[in-house]
Order: sequence, then structure tokens, then C-alpha cells
Amino acid sequence: MNYKLRCVHCGRIYDPNDVRYTCPICGQRLGTLEVIYERQGIVNRDFDVEHRGIWAFSEFLPIKREHFEVPLLVGNTPIYEERKLADELGLASLYIKDDGRNPTASYKDRASAVAIAKAKELNIDTIYCASTGNAASSIAGLSAASGMKSIIFVPKSAPAAKLTQLLVYGATVIAVDGSYDEAFDLSMEIGEKFGWYCRNSAVNPYLLEGKKTGAMEAALQLGWNVPDFAMVSVGDGTVVSSIYKGFKDLKDVGFVDRIPRMIGVQAEGANAVMRTFESGKFDVPRDMVAHSIADSIAVGKPRDVLKACKYVRASGGRFVSVSDEEIGRAVVELSRKTGVFAEPAGAAAYAGLKKIHDELKGRSVIIFVTGNGLKDVGSARRFVGKVYSVKPIKEEVEEALRNAGAI
Amino acid sequence: MNYKLRCVHCGRIYDPNDVRYTCPICGQRLGTLEVIYERQGIVNRDFDVEHRGIWAFSEFLPIKREHFEVPLLVGNTPIYEERKLADELGLASLYIKDDGRNPTASYKDRASAVAIAKAKELNIDTIYCASTGNAASSIAGLSAASGMKSIIFVPKSAPAAKLTQLLVYGATVIAVDGSYDEAFDLSMEIGEKFGWYCRNSAVNPYLLEGKKTGAMEAALQLGWNVPDFAMVSVGDGTVVSSIYKGFKDLKDVGFVDRIPRMIGVQAEGANAVMRTFESGKFDVPRDMVAHSIADSIAVGKPRDVLKACKYVRASGGRFVSVSDEEIGRAVVELSRKTGVFAEPAGAAAYAGLKKIHDELKGRSVIIFVTGNGLKDVGSARRFVGKVYSVKPIKEEVEEALRNAGAI
Repeated sequence: MNYKLRCVHCGRIYDPNDVRYTCPICGQRLGTLEVIYERQGIVNRDFDVEHRGIWAFSEFLPIKREHFEVPLLVGNTPIYEERKLADELGLASLYIKDDGRNPTASYKDRASAVAIAKAKELNIDTIYCASTGNAASSIAGLSAASGMKSIIFVPKSAPAAKLTQLLVYGATVIAVDGSYDEAFDLSMEIGEKFGWYCRNSAVNPYLLEGKKTGAMEAALQLGWNVPDFAMVSVGDGTVVSSIYKGFKDLKDVGFVDRIPRMIGVQAEGANAVMRTFESGKFDVPRDMVAHSIADSIAVGKPRDVLKACKYVRASGGRFVSVSDEEIGRAVVELSRKTGVFAEPAGAAAYAGLKKIHDELKGRSVIIFVTGNGLKDVGSARRFVGKVYSVKPIKEEVEEALRNAGAI
Repeated sequence: MNYKLRCVHCGRIYDPNDVRYTCPICGQRLGTLEVIYERQGIVNRDFDVEHRGIWAFSEFLPIKREHFEVPLLVGNTPIYEERKLADELGLASLYIKDDGRNPTASYKDRASAVAIAKAKELNIDTIYCASTGNAASSIAGLSAASGMKSIIFVPKSAPAAKLTQLLVYGATVIAVDGSYDEAFDLSMEIGEKFGWYCRNSAVNPYLLEGKKTGAMEAALQLGWNVPDFAMVSVGDGTVVSSIYKGFKDLKDVGFVDRIPRMIGVQAEGANAVMRTFESGKFDVPRDMVAHSIADSIAVGKPRDVLKACKYVRASGGRFVSVSDEEIGRAVVELSRKTGVFAEPAGAAAYAGLKKIHDELKGRSVIIFVTGNGLKDVGSARRFVGKVYSVKPIKEEVEEALRNAGAI
């Protein structure tokens, strides 16, 4: 597809051959770029998601006709209609899109796959990012599958278990004795010096294009009937923007007739995007020290704020925030009511729905679950009941079962 | 489908209305039952796995026409052709079926889904098993999604993280101060007393029927071209039997023209099935104390030995065993070469292939990866490289990158 890049702040249009990441005038934090397409001809509606995953939507992606495809099935994740839960919450309908079933178990695989396609287009064989979470494991795993090298910059505080997975995939892991932001800035400096490809969220405009396929898949799975509201957790702001963009691109070609109202859900301890949105002044927010059990959205210095605010406003949506307590309970409740075990950030969207469902009575809602609960089993621990320890004696077992209310 | 149950030991045929689990004559460990079908009419070849998962194969399953389907997409997991790796190993072709992408991230979901359908058929609302691993998380998750209660019996030594996931799903967890076998026996006794449905591997003949859909899906994905060899890790022996049965059921209706030679891969420290097979006397093996990093196949008292041995022999296959060192290295190598991060038991099949690939030169091989690496990130730790710790200074980062061989 032919496309240009447009600065979300100043509106300048760039040729993708001239500018790779962000607007040279507005800078890295305000001047993130949007991909705008110069469409010629009609889009084929025959999307073979089962076999091709996100590449079924390649006519909506900023890639060449002959592009590299990561040899793992990215996307093709299930969507579930939750009738009983919709009734309980007074909704007309409720859908859950479970993106924890991607190759490395998070939504980020959609972005990484496109990043790798772009790197291959540029004949770059090394890709880097600063992350301790899903972006890192995603790029490490997809790079391994693609014969690429990956370099991951993490703050020294990153938990060992998360780093092990990166090492298993063969990534080079650099632990910086400093904050996440120091690791981020160093990654940009080193990455540029050595000419590696950048997979830092928000900086790279193509990541959002990959992520938007989640919305497109959902629309396809729902027979192009778009729900009234879409709920998604927000850290940097890229995923919520991408879901808006996915529906918008479909609306532009007439496949859907509207865009859901986007409800961005932030953790109370990391709600910089919400505060910016509510201030009405869409500028770079004051940095904060983020605190949340939902590590994937515990972002103190979000990097895609302007786009997220503009897109959410354009959709007629808004932001809500939820406490760690609400997130933890949402992990458990969502698992028990639907069987979908989400990581805390993934369940945050459900926590947001619980918080505002009174306002959504009679409406249809989709929740995007962005990561698998196996990524972080521990953080739900204090919200669950106990294990009943017994001697191997039948009577003791029965007493325990009675105490548990099971008999 | 109409079906009967046949004892794998004495060959007696039972009506499923008369016998629920094992042969009353031959007992629990020798007398596991096979499901044999009385097929009438032709099977429809139009399998909609994308939308229906394992239920696309319902004409091959021991369920009523109107059956309950767990409202999670079970199956529909990807298969990958690994051309480069096939070349390296001298194989004609190599396929990896990644069943870590099931709802609770293991092959066991295929069995649990059928168990729940059977329980619903019998109007039983509680299901139980003795397990610390994939069977437990699978039945807990799928029960939650299905509005069923689940009771899980575990030995007291079970790791806390694995139990947390069960509690998140709302399972009642009984930790027995004793061995796995004591927990197993207690579960059978209590489960029978309260009339719950049993999801203990091997005991319940329908679990294997659910599991066989993995082979059927693979055959469908390969256009009914069956590879020469199928490699699968073996603990109790049910999965390897199920894969044989899946191909056999397809051969019986003429969809495939042969059954791959089954290669069962056991851990050296838990190789009771292999020893029984090699002895030529297919009896209950002497129990052993199992030791392996691959916890899902670390079975000291396997319960489906006879069936596994008979089916593997019928296929013209055999068993191999691999060390913990080989399994750990296989986790890492498989991740790096394919991007498929498998749990140790899942990677054991690849370790087995590495061990015997010289004998398979020029042949086609399929590996079944039965569980996701996120289930057990820690055990690969000692087989990976190190994290490079640096001060936030560009020069230090570059030195680390040089030491890592990345620049």
C-alpha cells in the first residue's frame, strides 16, 4: 500500500523514505506519526485470518506487496460472546477478544511482526527495544523465528523470570543500572549509532499499524457489526490508538459504518494519559512515578499521549482509572466467569467495565484482553482463596471439602 | 456417534451405559478402555476448525449429536513447517504442531473439553482430578468457562505458583500430605462417593478421544499428507496413544493412507513406559521414583502403559529417552530456531528428535509441542546466557555489546 506519514501534532506530511520514526520538528514525545494511506482500488473482502493471521489484512498495512512474514501465526485469536455476563452487567452484549493467545502470549506480537517486516524491507538484521515486558518477549520471540538478532535494554530492577524468557529466545539483554527512561534513552542512542531497527512503542509509527489488526479481526469475527463501546487498558497509549485506527480504516473503506466509543482504562497509579485527556490540553504530560500491579501499563512517562487523546476524543469516548485492588479482583472474576485468564493489564479493561457498566446499560461492549495471565501468575495471589491442606485420610478430606463449601 | 468400550487388556466389549471408566475385570491399571465406533454413513470432510476447534471433528468423538461445547476455542492451534531446521537435521520435512496455544496453554485442553461434555451429558456439575500440572489448570479453566465446579487433589509438595492459577479459576484445591499416588487414590475414592465426574488421565477413556483431535487437526492442516514419524513426549502414555488413535480413525475412514511411526520420548528419570515396551512384556511396570525437569512427564507410576505400548508397536514405532540436560537445551534451541517456546515436556519431543535424527534421514517428521514455555520459565534458566549489567553510560553499554558478540 502507498502511504505517507503525518505528524499527529503539527500535521506535516512526510514521505516514509525521508522520515523513519518521529516528526523532526515536533520531537519524539509530541511528534509521533500517523500512517495515512493513498488507497487505489477496492479492498478484497476475503480475509483468510485462519491461515495468514494479521497478514490477511496486508492491504491495510504499510508494507510492500512482497513483504516478509514472521513464520509464526500472529493474530487469529478467538473472540467470545459472553451472554451471561452481559446480562449480569445489564449490557445488550459483551465480547471478549483474547489476544493472550498470540505466539508470545500478548497483543504486542501484532506490532512486532510488522516491525520485523519493516526491518527486513530495510535490510536491517538487528532490532532493539527498551522494555521489561510484553514488547521485549514479543520482539525476542519473533526475531528468533525470523532469523533476526534482538537487543533488549531493561532497567536493572527487571524481574529475573521475565529476563529468562528473553535469554531463552537468544536475545542480548542489557540491564541498565538506572530507570526505565534511562534505558530507553540509551537504547535510542545506541540503536541509532549502529543502524539497528527500533521497536520502541510510539516512536515507531508502524507498530500501531500492526496492532490495529486486533480491531480488524474483531470486526471481521463480528460480521462487521461494530459494538458501541471498546474497552482497552492504556499505558503508553498506543494500543487504544491502534484499535481506534483499525476501526477507522475499516470505516474509510465502508466495511463498518461506525467506530466504537473508545474507553481507555488506566491504573490509578499510572494515569498520566487520563489526566492529560481530562485537562483538555493535549500536551506532553508531567511525568509521574508509576505504581501498579499491572506492570504492562505501569507507565510514568507515556509516549503516545497526544495520539491516544485525539483518537479517544474523536471516537466520543473517554478514560477511566481503576485501583490495583479492582484490577486484581478483575483477574479473578474474569477467569471464573469466562475462563479467560488475563494478565493484570489485560484484566484492567474488565475492571474498567465493572466500574462504569451502569452508564453502558443496554449497549454492546467489546473488551480487548491484551496479555495472558501466565505472564504474571503471582499478582493475583492475594485475591484468591486458600489451598486446603489435609492428611491422606478420607475424613479429613471430606471435612476440608465441607469447609470449602464444595460438599 | 455410536460407540462401545473395549478393554485394551482382555478385549471385552462394554456398553458405555454399563461401564464408565475402566474394565471391571482387569482393573484400573491394566484395563483401560478404548472407544470403538460403529460408524454409519460417510463422514463430512468439511471441518471448520477455525470457528469450532476440536468440535469440527465431532463425528469422530464419543458424544451425542446435541452435546455441550466449552465456550472457549479449544484446538485450532498452528502447525509450522520448519524448512531450515529440517535441512540441518537431514530430514525431508519437519512440522511443529504448537499446542501451547490452547486456552490454558496445553494439549490437555482437548481432553478436558470432552470430559466436560461427558459430565454435562450425565448431568454432573462437579469434575475432579489429581494433578499438579496441565490437566489441573486445564480442567479448572474449562470448568470455570462452563459453569462447572472443579476439585483438584494435589500432593502437598506442589509449587505455589501452579496452585495460584487453579485458585484464580475458582477450583477447590485439596493438598494431600502424601505422594501423588495417595492424592490420586483419595481423589478416586472421594469422587466416586460424591458422584463427581473423573478427569484422571487414563482412567477416563474419553480423554484420549479428545486428545486425538490434535493428530486430526495436523492431518487436515497438512492436506491429509501424513508424515513418516510423529514425535511426542510420554508421561502416563495417553497423549502418544491419542495421536496414534487420531491418525488411525482417519485411516479407517480413508482420509489418510497410513499412520506415522510413533516415537514416544520419555525423560531418563521417568522412563517406565519405555522399559515396559523394550521388555516386550506389556504389563503394569514396576513403579519408580520419577526425576525430571519436565514435570508434565515426570511420572513414576504411569497409568496408560499397555495402550501406549500396543499402539506404538502397531505403528512400527518405538521409544527413546532423553536426559534433563538434553531437555533443557532443547527448550532453548527450539525457541531460538523456531520461536516456539515450549515447556520442558513439550521440548522433550524435540530433544528426542535431536537424539535419533540420523536414523530419520530423508524422512518427514512431525513434533507435537504439548505445552507452553510460560508454564515453567525457570527450568530453562541454567541453559541460557547471561544478562549484561551496565551503568547508564554509552561506553559501558558498547563494551557489554562487544562482550556479548552483538557488535
